[in-house]
Amino acid sequence: MEILGLLYEGKAKKIYSTDQEEQLLVEYKDDATAFNGEKRDVISGKGELNNRISGIFFRLLTENGVENHYLKEISPTKQLVKKVEIVPIEVVIRNIVAGSLAKRLGLAEGTILPQPVVEFYYKNDQLGDPLINSSHIAVLQLATKEQVQKMKAISLKVNEIITAFLRERKIILVDFKLEFGITGDGQLILADEISPDTCRFWDEETYEKLDKDRFRRDLGNVEEAYRKILNRIGGEENV
Amino acid sequence: MEILGLLYEGKAKKIYSTDQEEQLLVEYKDDATAFNGEKRDVISGKGELNNRISGIFFRLLTENGVENHYLKEISPTKQLVKKVEIVPIEVVIRNIVAGSLAKRLGLAEGTILPQPVVEFYYKNDQLGDPLINSSHIAVLQLATKEQVQKMKAISLKVNEIITAFLRERKIILVDFKLEFGITGDGQLILADEISPDTCRFWDEETYEKLDKDRFRRDLGNVEEAYRKILNRIGGEENV
Ligand SMILES: Nc1ncnc2c1ncn2[C@@H]1O[C@H](COP(=O)(O)OP(=O)(O)O)[C@@H](O)[C@H]1O
Ligand SMILES: Nc1ncnc2c1ncn2[C@@H]1O[C@H](COP(=O)(O)OP(=O)(O)O)[C@@H](O)[C@H]1O
Ligand SMILES: [Mg+2]
Ligand SMILES: [Mg+2]
Repeated sequence: MEILGLLYEGKAKKIYSTDQEEQLLVEYKDDATAFNGEKRDVISGKGELNNRISGIFFRLLTENGVENHYLKEISPTKQLVKKVEIVPIEVVIRNIVAGSLAKRLGLAEGTILPQPVVEFYYKNDQLGDPLINSSHIAVLQLATKEQVQKMKAISLKVNEIITAFLRERKIILVDFKLEFGITGDGQLILADEISPDTCRFWDEETYEKLDKDRFRRDLGNVEEAYRKILNRIGGEENV
Repeated sequence: MEILGLLYEGKAKKIYSTDQEEQLLVEYKDDATAFNGEKRDVISGKGELNNRISGIFFRLLTENGVENHYLKEISPTKQLVKKVEIVPIEVVIRNIVAGSLAKRLGLAEGTILPQPVVEFYYKNDQLGDPLINSSHIAVLQLATKEQVQKMKAISLKVNEIITAFLRERKIILVDFKLEFGITGDGQLILADEISPDTCRFWDEETYEKLDKDRFRRDLGNVEEAYRKILNRIGGEENV
């Protein structure tokens, strides 16, 4: 596999084309951004930690029958993935109230939800990633009804798999964001990343936040928190 | 029918109990508010105009088989309605992009939607009436799944009936907000009001705004616009 040009640089990752038409190289960066890019910093070691953590979760999902873009780890900060056309919808699943849901519904952070909340956000930085519903998705033609149903069903399955996996490791999966894409042959699969940048993880006993909220809320020890996650889910890394 | 005490005073109406347990008197006020109460004024004559306009629309819906709370006009500013327990959800139907939808989706005001957009908002002034989806409705237990389906279906039927009625009167129904309630015997029916305070109406030829946007955007001639609506839909009033 040979790396060709930089295709796209996002807030957290760089995407490179490779000599394989259907494969991309994802490089996880140390850059941290929040509040739609208003808050920025560099968390040294984050790229390596997220590459490793994301790899572990995607392999877990593959083992459990959830088709996804992950192919293999290439270096401490790089992984090979299937190229997809990203559906511009962020699917958020919530088990416990936190962040914007607390504000939207006036519920206390930490409230256990009686059933998972499923939300769709329009992946559009200019608009600030607004909450949307199925009728917005239809008029914007962001996805078909069938694709929306499939994204919801897969996301709820991912929630069950990762929640159970983390419970054994004394971590609560509070909420997370997923992105999906369409492969060259028209298949809808899970893509992007699953990491402390895109999930909320709380320690089961202390409720210590082990995710990007440490950065958003200036709680300190961001890298240490991400490293705790990697260690608890059994990864090794050589930062 | 005898008027008993003031039960509730809202931003646009006063609700009185009557000697009939299952009937309420609604008094339409001249008060105008926008942006969740931040902007306020008194539009003299508005109460009478909205009482008349709302009555005409509710009678039209009754004729077309849409069960609703309206019983009869009592005075220029008052109407008798069936008492309901209001479902704290505002259902918004949109045919043309305007207002918050333009901002949310980044679409130009005036864009004709390929199909009606259906939105649910949590009727909660403290939270600023946020957009919610069916999973928020479920965890807050605002309504059952069946009630949500029914509210959506009735709202789309109301859209068809009023759109056709107004088209003959050279008015475009851009969007509108409905509220529903549960009667004493557990039936879900349409309630609240249907007026230029709760709908966007545009003149079919000039695109002149004939609704509350004249107040929100300081366009002037608010009362004249509401009166135009009443005249076009065939009402008489003696302001
Ligand atoms: N398998 C894939 N194929 C193509 N693009 C992908 C794939 N996985 C993720 N992406 C996209 O890569 C981009 C870079 O990621 P990131 O830095 O997180 O971007 P963003 O700033 O949009 O969050 C994102 O637009 C993401 O959707
Ligand atoms: N048939 C009804 N029975 C009971 N309450 C009603 C009925 N129709 C409307 N209402 C409620 O009357 C209240 C007063 O109306 P309004 O002044 O528009 O209030 P708001 O400030 O909440 O918009 C609202 O809470 C509305 O939902
Ligand atoms: Mg991203
Ligand atoms: Mg009202």
